[in-house]
Amino acid sequence: MDQVNLKKLAQALNLAPSTVSRALSDSYEISAATKARVLEMAQQLNYQPNPYARSLRKRSSYTIAVIVPEVANNFFSLVINGIEEIAQAKGYHVLIYITHENYAKEAAFIKHLLNGRVDGILMSLSGETQDLSHIYELKQHNLPVVFFDRICEEMETVKVTTNDYESGQLATRHLLEKGCRDIAYLAASGHLSTDKLRLQGYADALRESGKTVPDNRTLLFSADQEANKQALRKLLMSPSRPDGIFAAAESLAILSYEVCKELGIIIPDQMKVISFSNLRTASLLNPSLTTITQPAFDIGKEAATALFHAIGKNKARPENRKIILSSTLIERDSTASSPNLI
Amino acid sequence: MDQVNLKKLAQALNLAPSTVSRALSDSYEISAATKARVLEMAQQLNYQPNPYARSLRKRSSYTIAVIVPEVANNFFSLVINGIEEIAQAKGYHVLIYITHENYAKEAAFIKHLLNGRVDGILMSLSGETQDLSHIYELKQHNLPVVFFDRICEEMETVKVTTNDYESGQLATRHLLEKGCRDIAYLAASGHLSTDKLRLQGYADALRESGKTVPDNRTLLFSADQEANKQALRKLLMSPSRPDGIFAAAESLAILSYEVCKELGIIIPDQMKVISFSNLRTASLLNPSLTTITQPAFDIGKEAATALFHAIGKNKARPENRKIILSSTLIERDSTASSPNLI
Repeated sequence: MDQVNLKKLAQALNLAPSTVSRALSDSYEISAATKARVLEMAQQLNYQPNPYARSLRKRSSYTIAVIVPEVANNFFSLVINGIEEIAQAKGYHVLIYITHENYAKEAAFIKHLLNGRVDGILMSLSGETQDLSHIYELKQHNLPVVFFDRICEEMETVKVTTNDYESGQLATRHLLEKGCRDIAYLAASGHLSTDKLRLQGYADALRESGKTVPDNRTLLFSADQEANKQALRKLLMSPSRPDGIFAAAESLAILSYEVCKELGIIIPDQMKVISFSNLRTASLLNPSLTTITQPAFDIGKEAATALFHAIGKNKARPENRKIILSSTLIERDSTASSPNLI
Repeated sequence: MDQVNLKKLAQALNLAPSTVSRALSDSYEISAATKARVLEMAQQLNYQPNPYARSLRKRSSYTIAVIVPEVANNFFSLVINGIEEIAQAKGYHVLIYITHENYAKEAAFIKHLLNGRVDGILMSLSGETQDLSHIYELKQHNLPVVFFDRICEEMETVKVTTNDYESGQLATRHLLEKGCRDIAYLAASGHLSTDKLRLQGYADALRESGKTVPDNRTLLFSADQEANKQALRKLLMSPSRPDGIFAAAESLAILSYEVCKELGIIIPDQMKVISFSNLRTASLLNPSLTTITQPAFDIGKEAATALFHAIGKNKARPENRKIILSSTLIERDSTASSPNLI
């Protein structure tokens, strides 16, 4: 496989190599049209810049870091794919750091990155993170950071999310319409921006239908899978168990299926389940799972685009704005109406 | 959350900080018993060494790289978890690089890593990789590498795999016992060590049962999901379609379910499916999926342990040996006998 270098890329475009180089580094000297042409050809020819050579020329690592709570989750895998599509066209390497929902790991990674190893950071907070001092250190070190999904509200930067509040409302209304009278909300953590908004949407949807919001129907989960299973078992074994589950994360929907199967609770007849999820097997489950599906790939692309914009302008602080991409409710069998219950 | 530093860790152990430091860097001056005690306490207190400070003291990055073809796959996610468990106890950071089965990306990552960014590499080859010159460059740069799963047979180093040949035999025999007469083998690629051995096991199991090995029943897939779907559709729409599928990778089992559903082919009555897979939802699928389940977490731990052994001894070349951990066949409904077919 012949490597396409800068010279060959320039030849294919009939441009000077210096022009192509400046286009790829998003220089103000090059028009938007030319930049687009260069990026398209670079992708087409699978152009892979040599980041090491470039690093020697410029004081840049041509590397960005992505800090995520986990990768065994289709949402984060798809976000990473979106980020990599943009990074590849820009000639950047992507390093993935996994916090496993652990605050200490997240803080250690950030410290590790302050030494100039990367040019910018894309991150989604761990479920444990409450103290944000490590995040503010990035600002002091002029290292740009863009948040996605689980964002840091206080920090002035770009934040890319889905419409968490509206989606929480939508999911809850859907369960109510399908006949649920008592809905539990399973959250990945009590601290996350995503969980707070989804919970707010859930509570408002219950209120608008004239229901009170029960205080024993919100379960906060942790990284400890066994403890999570115990908590859910306890809820579903109680004589006054709920008849609907709204899971704020994919792993909690899988857990719900596992516990229902174990306890002989039939989905959807005795329990309806809806979940935030990009699970590839959602339509193949028994029964198929109704999901709030996030535009994960596009969230990754938007976040990476915003970060490269800040890096290109040598701006440690990307402008302060929120980009909100809508999720879609995909109705499947796990929330089918059960005539015998209504 | 108070950070536990080396001094506090030493106090808790009632040892000198220098002793603890040497124990953590696996020095020959410290006994195995003391090392074990130090590691246990470090894990218990969640000790996070400051890799930057340590890097300044020593010519070491306290970082290892893991190069994998994808992360949207439970096998690789679990391997990464196993690697991180070992790395965390050693005070190392783990960087994940995803090749997306692309040779050019893999070669670019290796080039990128030659500049001393990491102390060692754990890798599983991309499906496209045939030319191995980039791998040999690691040797020239004295950068130790350990392979797992998709290994480079020719390179003298540690290779950690499952018993691919025997598992291929086992899967095929299982389908034959369940009544299949015509079994297709779906491979992730034609070049990979794993695929070659699993295919060999499949062919030998067919031969031992007195069957000839058909040449049109082996499908080689690529990273192009749409092309893969087309190829499988074509096979399953032919008048002489197979009655059993042995999928060498998780994504190919999911694809088989999707295409069977689309074409109205009923699993297991009209088509039996078995797959190499660590899919968390395997037991929740409709029907539940029979799997060859690899000890993914332990594969990660073994590979990381071998790499740290080489790093600790300042050995660019880990000793040349294979570590083979056995997989398990977990029988579920996708291969249930269909009396009407036998």
